[in-house]
Amino acid sequence: MKPYAELNREELKSLKAELDRQYEEIKAQGLSLDMSRGKPATDQLDISMGMMDVLHGDADLTCETGVDCRNYGVIDGIPEAKRLLGAISEVEPDDIIIYGNSSLNVMFDSIARSMTHGVMGHTPWCKLDKVKFLCPVPGYDRHFKITEFFGIEMINVPMTKTGPDMDMVEEYVSSDEAIKGIWCVPKYSNPQGITYSRETCERFARLKPAAPDFRIYWDNAYSVHHLYDYHQDFLLEILEECRKAGNPDIVYKFTSTSKISFPGSGIAAVAASRANLDDFRKYMRIQTIGHDKLNQLRHVRFFKNLDGVHEHMRRHASLIRPKFELIENVLSTEIGGLGIGEWTKPYGGYFISFDAIDGCAKRIVALAKEAGVIMTDAGATFPYGIDPRDRNIRIAPTFPTLQELEKAAQVFVICVKKASVEKLLEE
Amino acid sequence: MKPYAELNREELKSLKAELDRQYEEIKAQGLSLDMSRGKPATDQLDISMGMMDVLHGDADLTCETGVDCRNYGVIDGIPEAKRLLGAISEVEPDDIIIYGNSSLNVMFDSIARSMTHGVMGHTPWCKLDKVKFLCPVPGYDRHFKITEFFGIEMINVPMTKTGPDMDMVEEYVSSDEAIKGIWCVPKYSNPQGITYSRETCERFARLKPAAPDFRIYWDNAYSVHHLYDYHQDFLLEILEECRKAGNPDIVYKFTSTSKISFPGSGIAAVAASRANLDDFRKYMRIQTIGHDKLNQLRHVRFFKNLDGVHEHMRRHASLIRPKFELIENVLSTEIGGLGIGEWTKPYGGYFISFDAIDGCAKRIVALAKEAGVIMTDAGATFPYGIDPRDRNIRIAPTFPTLQELEKAAQVFVICVKKASVEKLLEE
Repeated sequence: MKPYAELNREELKSLKAELDRQYEEIKAQGLSLDMSRGKPATDQLDISMGMMDVLHGDADLTCETGVDCRNYGVIDGIPEAKRLLGAISEVEPDDIIIYGNSSLNVMFDSIARSMTHGVMGHTPWCKLDKVKFLCPVPGYDRHFKITEFFGIEMINVPMTKTGPDMDMVEEYVSSDEAIKGIWCVPKYSNPQGITYSRETCERFARLKPAAPDFRIYWDNAYSVHHLYDYHQDFLLEILEECRKAGNPDIVYKFTSTSKISFPGSGIAAVAASRANLDDFRKYMRIQTIGHDKLNQLRHVRFFKNLDGVHEHMRRHASLIRPKFELIENVLSTEIGGLGIGEWTKPYGGYFISFDAIDGCAKRIVALAKEAGVIMTDAGATFPYGIDPRDRNIRIAPTFPTLQELEKAAQVFVICVKKASVEKLLEE
Repeated sequence: MKPYAELNREELKSLKAELDRQYEEIKAQGLSLDMSRGKPATDQLDISMGMMDVLHGDADLTCETGVDCRNYGVIDGIPEAKRLLGAISEVEPDDIIIYGNSSLNVMFDSIARSMTHGVMGHTPWCKLDKVKFLCPVPGYDRHFKITEFFGIEMINVPMTKTGPDMDMVEEYVSSDEAIKGIWCVPKYSNPQGITYSRETCERFARLKPAAPDFRIYWDNAYSVHHLYDYHQDFLLEILEECRKAGNPDIVYKFTSTSKISFPGSGIAAVAASRANLDDFRKYMRIQTIGHDKLNQLRHVRFFKNLDGVHEHMRRHASLIRPKFELIENVLSTEIGGLGIGEWTKPYGGYFISFDAIDGCAKRIVALAKEAGVIMTDAGATFPYGIDPRDRNIRIAPTFPTLQELEKAAQVFVICVKKASVEKLLEE
């Protein structure tokens, strides 16, 4: 079939009639499918069930320093958990703090702390007239919601194939003291699945911020979340890079086991310079008596070490790879060459990013919803929920079964075609 | 023996010589004991070990509404956890939100939220010149640390046998708009083990605060933590009382299972009016994707219901009651009638509060430390760590074994006697 842009008005009209018919047909099926959130599927959860047995009623629940993990004590993580999460984060155990069940919560707290207490002795942000954050777009809606919640002004920075537009990042960060941070998902980014290139990382490490309390919020959520054995993206370890560049304090590196073990029942961590970690600890010592050490122990006993994690992640990959491949197949078969959409083909992470013709994303998501397929809201991948070109849609293929996904993908492509034809007919 | 105050100078001097000898003797034993923190002992932790087996690898991990507790979802608690914690808190399941592992963390977050976002639409506290909290004294050091951390001015309110001095509370709260809260441990209070009387609770419920965003921080940490079967303190349910008084929004009621199941691996909750809970949820939805539902399920499957909790608490009581009785015996045998100290005899909770002669607390704690017995720092039970009369010491008898506790108590009474004689000789 020809690209839609080359069709004349009559051809578009007859195509529209056919697509309307297909859409009504599929709507009549009364589907109820969800491609909206990056949730693991049930079969993925099943592979972690062994974790429920490692801390049984007769188990010794002391950590390697002899601390009874069932009682209060040890504010920043048991040593073996620091080693395991440190290995996942590619840092030394002393460069990491172990938290509770949610790295998002730690990011939120980092912003909250900066608001009320400032960063390492600098003015609390709530005392400043203006605080701004750079937001690579498309990006993670939950990040943007945090900065919006605290009244922080968000500035869009376009993503390229190698990460955020670094010319723009450097320009902003070096010239505006109100810019206090940037949200990054540097590996298998949400939603595009892009991994920042070596050059991008090096330029991040060498930033010369106007604000001494500027920090890179490096949310390495998908560090070990590869889809393939033979092709994996490589990401430079940013802490070491920042140290080498004489910028040791510029980055907070977040991680969690949410999509390794159980979402909501995993463990989270932050790696950063010793000075930053001391700043975190000052807050932490007042905020809590300590996090859940039994869950830390449970993770360590189950995974044992980084090899154990990698082996486990290969099992996840074998379950979700077919889902990514299915979406790729349907999209390329049904839409390839039509000039009505572009999408990413990530080697890891949880998402595929789809760019429709400008002005079509909201319509596509609405059509899909009407036909029983929930997609992430159009706009969600941008600050304030506003996609200036109304074209980006995040596809989350992991949660549905393959069978459901096949149906959902067929609905999606019909909606893309229908919305595109409607758009072209408007012109 | 006569009260110390009736001894003449010569008698005091010869007593001091004898006590110095006893002190040196006990110091020479090189003890290393800890009566400083309210930690359960190992045998108490052992009674919860069954909890490690209820969620085994073959268990169905869905909650009663069919939600898979292993995955994301359910922001404010699974229904059965709301029911269980609701029962512990004496409120309906809809009046409670389930959190993570630490109620202290929830209290901290409540203050942090009030600082940056205000309470139910009122001005954020960080925008105000002055924010003050009332602090019943002696009280819980961790509470005071939170308000101190946020630069909130703390005002001491003396505790009486029926709770805080309510004349003073009413006067302050009704006349000063800067007063935004009061810290309360209403049942088996920390450190005195006092339970607020019916009248005290009624007066709390009927407060007429000058500040519309004033809240009572009702930390009901020891609601089911009785020492005896036949004598238990009764506390009025405060939410209902506030509702009846036309003050439904005035109170946040905190609870946790920290000293029911495992400290640091329990679950926490807040009960409050629907309007307050909505305010909490707005923050929560941005702060996290959700708390650890598997741990909620684990607690519900282990305890089943409130009866199960009470039965479990009787086991705790049978382990710690002898420790409270030992302290009472040693204190009354060794110090009773000497006029050098008064102490509480609580029916529940985790602490005994000891008041020495004015100006002696720091010296006693220092002497005990030198002899190898760690007590809670003198002053810790007061805001800013300053006990104006330097007399209050918190005794935490639960963590040591009975044998250790016996030794620690003997050290303590020698230190009390020695410090008292020294004090009297100064005069």
